[in-house]
Amino acid sequence: MAIRLFVTGGTFDKEYDEIHGRLYFKDTHLPEMLRMGRSRVAVEIRTLMMVDSLEMTEADRELIARHCRECDEDRIVITHGTDTMVDTAAVLARAVPGKTVVLTGAMIPIAFGSSDGLFNLGGALTAVQVLAPGIHVVMNGHVFRWDEVRKNRKTGVFERVTDTG
Amino acid sequence: MAIRLFVTGGTFDKEYDEIHGRLYFKDTHLPEMLRMGRSRVAVEIRTLMMVDSLEMTEADRELIARHCRECDEDRIVITHGTDTMVDTAAVLARAVPGKTVVLTGAMIPIAFGSSDGLFNLGGALTAVQVLAPGIHVVMNGHVFRWDEVRKNRKTGVFERVTDTG
Amino acid sequence: MAIRLFVTGGTFDKEYDEIHGRLYFKDTHLPEMLRMGRSRVAVEIRTLMMVDSLEMTEADRELIARHCRECDEDRIVITHGTDTMVDTAAVLARAVPGKTVVLTGAMIPIAFGSSDGLFNLGGALTAVQVLAPGIHVVMNGHVFRWDEVRKNRKTGVFERVTDTG
Amino acid sequence: MAIRLFVTGGTFDKEYDEIHGRLYFKDTHLPEMLRMGRSRVAVEIRTLMMVDSLEMTEADRELIARHCRECDEDRIVITHGTDTMVDTAAVLARAVPGKTVVLTGAMIPIAFGSSDGLFNLGGALTAVQVLAPGIHVVMNGHVFRWDEVRKNRKTGVFERVTDTG
Repeated sequence: MAIRLFVTGGTFDKEYDEIHGRLYFKDTHLPEMLRMGRSRVAVEIRTLMMVDSLEMTEADRELIARHCRECDEDRIVITHGTDTMVDTAAVLARAVPGKTVVLTGAMIPIAFGSSDGLFNLGGALTAVQVLAPGIHVVMNGHVFRWDEVRKNRKTGVFERVTDTG
Repeated sequence: MAIRLFVTGGTFDKEYDEIHGRLYFKDTHLPEMLRMGRSRVAVEIRTLMMVDSLEMTEADRELIARHCRECDEDRIVITHGTDTMVDTAAVLARAVPGKTVVLTGAMIPIAFGSSDGLFNLGGALTAVQVLAPGIHVVMNGHVFRWDEVRKNRKTGVFERVTDTG
Repeated sequence: MAIRLFVTGGTFDKEYDEIHGRLYFKDTHLPEMLRMGRSRVAVEIRTLMMVDSLEMTEADRELIARHCRECDEDRIVITHGTDTMVDTAAVLARAVPGKTVVLTGAMIPIAFGSSDGLFNLGGALTAVQVLAPGIHVVMNGHVFRWDEVRKNRKTGVFERVTDTG
Repeated sequence: MAIRLFVTGGTFDKEYDEIHGRLYFKDTHLPEMLRMGRSRVAVEIRTLMMVDSLEMTEADRELIARHCRECDEDRIVITHGTDTMVDTAAVLARAVPGKTVVLTGAMIPIAFGSSDGLFNLGGALTAVQVLAPGIHVVMNGHVFRWDEVRKNRKTGVFERVTDTG
C-alpha cells in the first residue's frame, strides 16, 4: 500500500536564517523525520510549494487538489500550515473523491527541539492507512473529519465544531 | 472517548545514569511527550512496571492483561520494550476480548535527541481511536494485527509475517 | 571568584511564538543552560533588557556600562545580540576600567536543537575566569580583544580585523 | 595558532546501540560538535583510542603522552572519560613539558539531548588558547590545574582539592 506525501510548507518546515535572524523556508524536513521515526512505510514525497498557509491562494489549493486527483496513490498525507489547513480540506472534500487524504502540520517548527511535528506525522501516517476514503485532519492527537474541525486562533488548538444549528 | 495509557518500561523510558555511566529506568516520559505533541486527547496514564521487556515474566504479562480487562476504558495504548512486544500481544489476544489495544515502543530512548518514540506514540494514539476491537502493534509507521508481525532481531525492524504454511 | 552574568537579549534568548508564528523574547535561557552544562561556578544572573541588538540604543549601552561599573563582581559575562556586540564592547572599553568583561551570543536561538549558544557560553565563562582586565568577545571558538574584531554581516562570522593603515 | 584535538573516548562519544539496547563507541562526535558551535578555530582532530576511561591502561596513558610530546602543536585539547581524567592529567604533567594541555569530557553522552559536552568543549577550546603551558582540566565551568582537582565519584562533580597537609 503505497502512500503519497505532499509537502506545502507551513510551520513544519520553517528554518532559522542565521544571517538575517528570521524564519524562512529551505528544504522539507520530511525525509529526515521519516528516518528518525524509523518508518518502513513505502512513501513517495513531493514538494508542491513552500508557503506560509496564510499566503496560500485559491490557485494553490486547486493545484493541491489536482495533484491529489491525478497521483497514482489512493492514500495521501499533506503537510500544511495550520492557519488555513481546514480551508484547504474543504476544497479537497469537493474536488478529490474516493481517496483517503489526511492533512497535518505543526505548531512548532521541526528545527526546534520541542516540535510537535514528529508526533503529528506519526499520527497522520497511521490514520491514512486505516481510514476510509474522505478528507481528514490529524492534529493534537485527534483525528477529525474535514467538516467537524476548526483551528482556534487564540489558543492554537484544533477543536471539534459543535453544530448547534 | 477516554483512552487508557499503560506504561511498562522498555527503551522508551530509559535514562542515562551519569554517576554510573549506564542506562536505567526512573520515571516515564509519557506526560512530557504528550505535552510536546500538544496532545488534547483525554488520557489516563498508569505505570504498571518499569522493566526491560527481555526481563518480563509471564506473571508480568498476566498483570498487564488483568489491568486491560478491568480498566473502564475500551481503548488502551501500552508502551512496551520491543524485544517481547509481540509475546505480550499474544497473551492479550487471548485474555482481553472486546477492547482496542495498541502496543508501541521505541528503538531509541526518548532521552536521546534522535528517538523514534514521539513518532510511534503519535501513531499509536491515532490508531487506538480508529481501529476496531483487537490487539495491534504500531511500529515503524506500520499498523500490524498481533498475529501478523514479528521483530527481526538482526535489523531491529518489525516485519509482517508471511504465512507460507 | 564570583561572576556576574548580564542578559541583554539577542538571538540567544529568542523563542517561537506558536500562536503568531514568529520569534519573540520571553525569559532568558541562561539558568537552564548552566544546568545543562552542569556548571558549578558561582554566578549572579541579572536581565538588563531583552532586545534585538539592532534595536539597542546608546542609552541602552550606557545602562549596561553603568551596571558593569557598579556591580560588586570584577568578572562579567554579557549575553548580547551579535549584530552590534562589537559596538557595545567599544562603549564598555571606554566606560568600564579595571574589570574583565566577556561578551558572547549565538547565531542560532537556544530553543533550536542546533544552537551554538552552549558552546559559546562555555567559552565565555571560561575566558572570564582566566583573562586579565579588559573587554573581550568570545564567538566561533575565538577569544578577541574588543578592538580587533568585527562581525562579517555576509557570512555571520566574527573575524579578526587586520589593520593595514 | 593551530590546536590539536586528541579523542580518547569517554562518555562524550557513547552511542546507543538500538539492536542490543546498550551504549557503545562508534565514531567521535567532535567534528559535528565544532560545526554546531560554528567554531572557526583551526584544529587537527585525531582519535587515539575509543575507551571507557575506567578501562584505560598505563600503556594507553603513555601513548597519549607520546602523542602530546610529538605532535607539532603546542596547544592540545584531549577528550577523555571523566572517571580517570585526573590520573591521565598526572601522567601528562610528568611527561609533556612546555605545552598547554586541557582535558575535558562529559557527564552525559553528546547523543543525548541534554549533554554538557558542548558547554565543556567550548570551555576547553577557549582555555587552551589563553592558558600558559601546563596540564589543566576544564569541567563544570571551572578551569583546574591538574594537581588541584579530583572527581567526586558520589556526586559526579569535579572539585578543587583543599590541601590540608
